[in-house]
Amino acid sequence: MGKKNKQFVENVTAMEDDFARWYTDVVKQADLVDYGPVRGTMIIKPDGFAIWENIRDELDRQIKATGHSNVSFPLFVPERLLQKEKDHVEGFAPEVAWVTHGGEDKLAERIAVRPTSEALFSDYYSKNIHSYRDLPMLYNQWANVVRWEKTTRPFLRSSEFHWQEGHTAHATDADASEETDRMLGVYADVVENYLAIPVYKGRKTDKEKFAGAKYTLTIEALMHDGKALQSATSHHFGSGFAEAFDITYLDENGESQFVHQTSWGLSTRIMGALIMVHGDNRGLVVPPQIAPTQAMIVPVAQHKEGVLDKAYDLRDEMKDLVRVGIDASDKKPGWKFNEYEMKGIPVRIEMGPKDIEKDQVVLVRRDTGEKEFVARTDLEARLPVLLDEIQQNLFDKALAHRVEKTSVATDMDEFKQTLDQKSGFIKAMWCGDMSCEEKIKEDTGATSRLIPFEQESIADTCVCCGKEAKELVYWAKAY
Amino acid sequence: MGKKNKQFVENVTAMEDDFARWYTDVVKQADLVDYGPVRGTMIIKPDGFAIWENIRDELDRQIKATGHSNVSFPLFVPERLLQKEKDHVEGFAPEVAWVTHGGEDKLAERIAVRPTSEALFSDYYSKNIHSYRDLPMLYNQWANVVRWEKTTRPFLRSSEFHWQEGHTAHATDADASEETDRMLGVYADVVENYLAIPVYKGRKTDKEKFAGAKYTLTIEALMHDGKALQSATSHHFGSGFAEAFDITYLDENGESQFVHQTSWGLSTRIMGALIMVHGDNRGLVVPPQIAPTQAMIVPVAQHKEGVLDKAYDLRDEMKDLVRVGIDASDKKPGWKFNEYEMKGIPVRIEMGPKDIEKDQVVLVRRDTGEKEFVARTDLEARLPVLLDEIQQNLFDKALAHRVEKTSVATDMDEFKQTLDQKSGFIKAMWCGDMSCEEKIKEDTGATSRLIPFEQESIADTCVCCGKEAKELVYWAKAY
Ligand SMILES: [Zn+2]
Ligand SMILES: [Zn+2]
Repeated sequence: MGKKNKQFVENVTAMEDDFARWYTDVVKQADLVDYGPVRGTMIIKPDGFAIWENIRDELDRQIKATGHSNVSFPLFVPERLLQKEKDHVEGFAPEVAWVTHGGEDKLAERIAVRPTSEALFSDYYSKNIHSYRDLPMLYNQWANVVRWEKTTRPFLRSSEFHWQEGHTAHATDADASEETDRMLGVYADVVENYLAIPVYKGRKTDKEKFAGAKYTLTIEALMHDGKALQSATSHHFGSGFAEAFDITYLDENGESQFVHQTSWGLSTRIMGALIMVHGDNRGLVVPPQIAPTQAMIVPVAQHKEGVLDKAYDLRDEMKDLVRVGIDASDKKPGWKFNEYEMKGIPVRIEMGPKDIEKDQVVLVRRDTGEKEFVARTDLEARLPVLLDEIQQNLFDKALAHRVEKTSVATDMDEFKQTLDQKSGFIKAMWCGDMSCEEKIKEDTGATSRLIPFEQESIADTCVCCGKEAKELVYWAKAY
Repeated sequence: MGKKNKQFVENVTAMEDDFARWYTDVVKQADLVDYGPVRGTMIIKPDGFAIWENIRDELDRQIKATGHSNVSFPLFVPERLLQKEKDHVEGFAPEVAWVTHGGEDKLAERIAVRPTSEALFSDYYSKNIHSYRDLPMLYNQWANVVRWEKTTRPFLRSSEFHWQEGHTAHATDADASEETDRMLGVYADVVENYLAIPVYKGRKTDKEKFAGAKYTLTIEALMHDGKALQSATSHHFGSGFAEAFDITYLDENGESQFVHQTSWGLSTRIMGALIMVHGDNRGLVVPPQIAPTQAMIVPVAQHKEGVLDKAYDLRDEMKDLVRVGIDASDKKPGWKFNEYEMKGIPVRIEMGPKDIEKDQVVLVRRDTGEKEFVARTDLEARLPVLLDEIQQNLFDKALAHRVEKTSVATDMDEFKQTLDQKSGFIKAMWCGDMSCEEKIKEDTGATSRLIPFEQESIADTCVCCGKEAKELVYWAKAY
């Protein structure tokens, strides 16, 4: 067991040695993803997809609960539609995969494999919205999109990825603002309460906003290596797309008005955050709320009479209470322990002849490694509570890490020094000029992550140029 | 009310007059689908997508219950992979949409937008299957695929469609056979018991089988116009793909063996069957098992005091029992009646001041139009039973139609005459020669739909050439 144990962890680079390799190793060893044959594409394997399904199902529930309907729009966007909104096409054209042939025939017009679907929804809205009675239109779709990226990494940046994209049209700018806020709130809830990842909420600078948006709201999380990851975004378009696509409605006075639109998305990128926030050198750690298997029963000395029967009884008793699995294969318990630690299953339930004698089981937490002996009669009460404790502990640990890694800087020396020594988020005042933003990026590698909703006044002057400060910004190196 | 009523049905061509136009009208008026901007693509609207979600959820449940795991494989297939299995590429190459550029750059190799994913799964299996311990490998994915069709119709034949595609690898031919049968059984269960569509089960002829398959199993349904629709297929590949992709495993004796594969799919095409089996001149009819809304409450004289309150009370009482909606908009009841008939909602619940006085509601069945007065105290017991009755009645009606439209022919005159006069399925004996199959198609327009599992001996000789008959075949004109 000791040897196997060591062997297993040998396949995973320690995160302190090489975080990027640790990430790739965990993704591979935890059986989440494999590479597809076309550069930058990924195969999401059963264990990876089951986690994504749980995230998707909860988010889908909340999207529907906030009044949205699921739809399915096409994969293909004609080039002429993509070109209608100037900022939008400029932002996306460099990464578009182009279809030029159907069967043997060359197409009259190139077709984009959707990098995102604003153009398609806007085209649809222009034909289907007539009156204020048609508003708001609240659509969402779960879809695959393609962006031809130069460098790719599983989940974090892949040529094809999965996401949901909400697209809505409203009568007024204020209605669209409310929607933009509401959906950022939904994302924050799912990411904090289900993925156990604390997020900062705020607005992107104009430099970092979505191509074509009036403004973009974002939630940003901190990875274990001190880099930030944009976890979901919610865009307010004002009437930019409406003007480009001529989307108008007759208001209650019979006057023609442009609609005001939003879009918002959360993608399989969040799987990367999950790995990089909770994972450790033994592998993945999955928060109980979204774990496909919350507790795995590993029988010990299962060849001894009665052990397997009791283990299956246990499974049957627990299965309506928690998502429970059992590994009754002939592999050694030590192998199984390592395997399910690597896969990040929140709780291991060990049961051997001695435990059966004492009418108890052993619970082992994935997050802390702590062992706990629980009487069989107490298990039904204890196990759900333990899962809640693990969920809370994962969030608390991530929050403590973020507190530790969130610093303040009032001048560039302090900014650089803190970033070098501590990494993480740097809170610093900004004058609002894009040139300062660009200079900071060039000098330090950090980008503006967000202008937090909760503003503080740290200093009166811009951290970069020393002119009058307008806003507090959170800066970080980012994925 | 009478006028609106008439207006509404005026938008739908009578199916007796022009079935194809009736279909298109219903698809449009019931708000299921709109056309995408690229030829042959479709936008599935909220009401259409909600039905598909219910079909998907039930099928997904059964796919998981039979031991399969969901995965996600890429949208893109390199041309060289598609070409590995000769029959397969010949079958699909003419309908492939080709990606030739990524951003500004021309790609070194053309990439196919997947028309189906056998090549991708086979490539993966060749790298990931080593030992008999790895088998069976039981994967499924829900995905969009693209086939560049010349003529397209919503759901029935679209350039892009949604489906699930199962891909499995097994140690033996017999194991793969069992799997092929099992999944056809799952499809038959979902289509018959959830979509209320009776199906014939059998095997495709070699001419009609999937490109690259050893054999294809199929379920075939009869549409209202007497044409057949292939509703789902399950393919046994033998070791054809295994040989082309070099997918081998070491058996228990340490000898290298080819795996045996299957694939099976059900697509959004089934939505077309749903419409054409149950629909009528008043619109769509959705079986209760998959209806997003099973009962719609329409308050009558809702401006009168207490009516709306009572209607909402009713909704609240019913909402844990059935999927219930309420339309409290200021549209006229007559408009609402027509609207929800068009959308195919199984039961309408009317409630006006008189009903409130008598402490009753009026239930109106979509399938028969029958009205039923039910005391409020009996509703909780009655409504679920009524939904079951509607589900059963839809199946029974479709079955009776199929019985009426399934005929026998022993020579080509009879074949042609029956097909002309009655349409539907023709049961006729076949010698097994593809030339007879081709001749029948050419002379009558009917294709071999399946070689039924339940064989009968109708005659000793082939209906076409008069030589010795080998098998009974069901023939029909088909979508
Ligand atoms: Zn400045
Ligand atoms: Zn013949």
